[in-house]
Amino acid sequence: MTSIYWHDNAFLPEEDVRISPHDRGYNFGDGIYEVFRVYGGKIFEAEAHFERLRRSAEGLKLALPWGLDGLRAAMTELVERNALSEGTVYLQITRGTAPRNHLFPADTAPSALAYTREVARPVQSMERGISVVTLEDIRWLHCNYKTLNLLANVLAKQEAADRGAADAVLHRDGVVTESSASNVMIVKDGLLITHPADNLILHGVTRAVALRLAQAAEIPYAERPFTLDELYAAEEAFVTGTTVEITPIVAVDGREVGSGKPGPITRRLQREFAAAIGR
Amino acid sequence: MTSIYWHDNAFLPEEDVRISPHDRGYNFGDGIYEVFRVYGGKIFEAEAHFERLRRSAEGLKLALPWGLDGLRAAMTELVERNALSEGTVYLQITRGTAPRNHLFPADTAPSALAYTREVARPVQSMERGISVVTLEDIRWLHCNYKTLNLLANVLAKQEAADRGAADAVLHRDGVVTESSASNVMIVKDGLLITHPADNLILHGVTRAVALRLAQAAEIPYAERPFTLDELYAAEEAFVTGTTVEITPIVAVDGREVGSGKPGPITRRLQREFAAAIGR
Repeated sequence: MTSIYWHDNAFLPEEDVRISPHDRGYNFGDGIYEVFRVYGGKIFEAEAHFERLRRSAEGLKLALPWGLDGLRAAMTELVERNALSEGTVYLQITRGTAPRNHLFPADTAPSALAYTREVARPVQSMERGISVVTLEDIRWLHCNYKTLNLLANVLAKQEAADRGAADAVLHRDGVVTESSASNVMIVKDGLLITHPADNLILHGVTRAVALRLAQAAEIPYAERPFTLDELYAAEEAFVTGTTVEITPIVAVDGREVGSGKPGPITRRLQREFAAAIGR
Repeated sequence: MTSIYWHDNAFLPEEDVRISPHDRGYNFGDGIYEVFRVYGGKIFEAEAHFERLRRSAEGLKLALPWGLDGLRAAMTELVERNALSEGTVYLQITRGTAPRNHLFPADTAPSALAYTREVARPVQSMERGISVVTLEDIRWLHCNYKTLNLLANVLAKQEAADRGAADAVLHRDGVVTESSASNVMIVKDGLLITHPADNLILHGVTRAVALRLAQAAEIPYAERPFTLDELYAAEEAFVTGTTVEITPIVAVDGREVGSGKPGPITRRLQREFAAAIGR
């Protein structure tokens, strides 16, 4: 079946989507995006994703085309038209198409594109855990905006793969921020710790879900910076993200985390997460 | 006359250029670019631009399609086909088109696009000088690569315009790096000073030309970091760039630089530059 895309408020077959070489997304990465998770044909945590999209747009002084309600209705229809049951919706919004100039174009409407993809839950890595390497966080200082300027993330993820790891955990001067595409949490003396939601990390939707689940399960947690040394010495560690959900980290830079197996608090949160999505 | 574009090694009319929504330039800003200056139908400082393109590609682990010689021949032909006498050539190279995934795609060739534009020399601003504002440099730590991740530059340039200035001079903790799209030089006690060509600034081609011209004219210069205070107190200041050439800065954050008029060393370098391009 041909995949149906949504582009500038029209539904059309993938092969009819045409991006201009003067789209500011293509020239400057001047845009924002969201990846929504679909379980059982419904967008999970839609409210939180759209609220973050609104904040990203605000940060970039980008007017959201068709408004949040319009976008939400379009994403819902896109899921239906593609009969998507389990997968993701990718939505990106750029500042539109105009002759190349750093300045915002005066009379150009933003442009939006969205499509769906069937994606299964990453059952194997959630069960076994992943190995990560640590790398210096060289990104800009607005990592809280979910923008198309993803080169540092791309290079970090590739470097991790080149070194045989599933992901790269980033740090600034020894303070862990997040991974190349997800948030990082550790358990130390029974306390769940994750970087505060400031300008140095993406405010992950699954991060917020995990903290909510921790609270409900009476697992104590703190949003505070933690160091590489605390990561190395952690009892447990895991990443949170829209597609990785809650995935244990079992090794960092070749050293085992805790027992080298997913720990009890990680397991508990995975079970709570599964329940939250009706599994 | 229809503009002729060059896309993936073919020459074609602008309206036939079609970018995929899965181009990694569009999704991640995963690519590099150059803007070449054309004077009298010839690319100025071609060697320096292609050498920087090579370094940017190396930094991003991006294989240059068609090689430097192939690219150079294509750019020369593009200028001829468009009968361009005075203007610019824009060339961007992305990691190609592949289903969205941070990891480098395994079997995807990079993609290249180039086009020309007629651009006159900015005679008025070179004569009168420009006003700038200063802003915190929030960019990533590989500003020496000329990449498509330009959001911080875009936001800085727009902020400057919103505040009635022509450009934003960026600083990290009070140390001036460069402007949103050009390098910055000051004159202090007769000494020309500009930030060293490290990872915090773009290694401007016009920056190098200006230093070469200074040397030939026996104007002493130093490549060392300088502070905002040194900028405020400078006898002269100017920006260097492929399209701005050597443009005086006559005011910073509303304060006059030196006499508030382009200074003698700036004027001298402008004359030397004009001579270098045969004017």
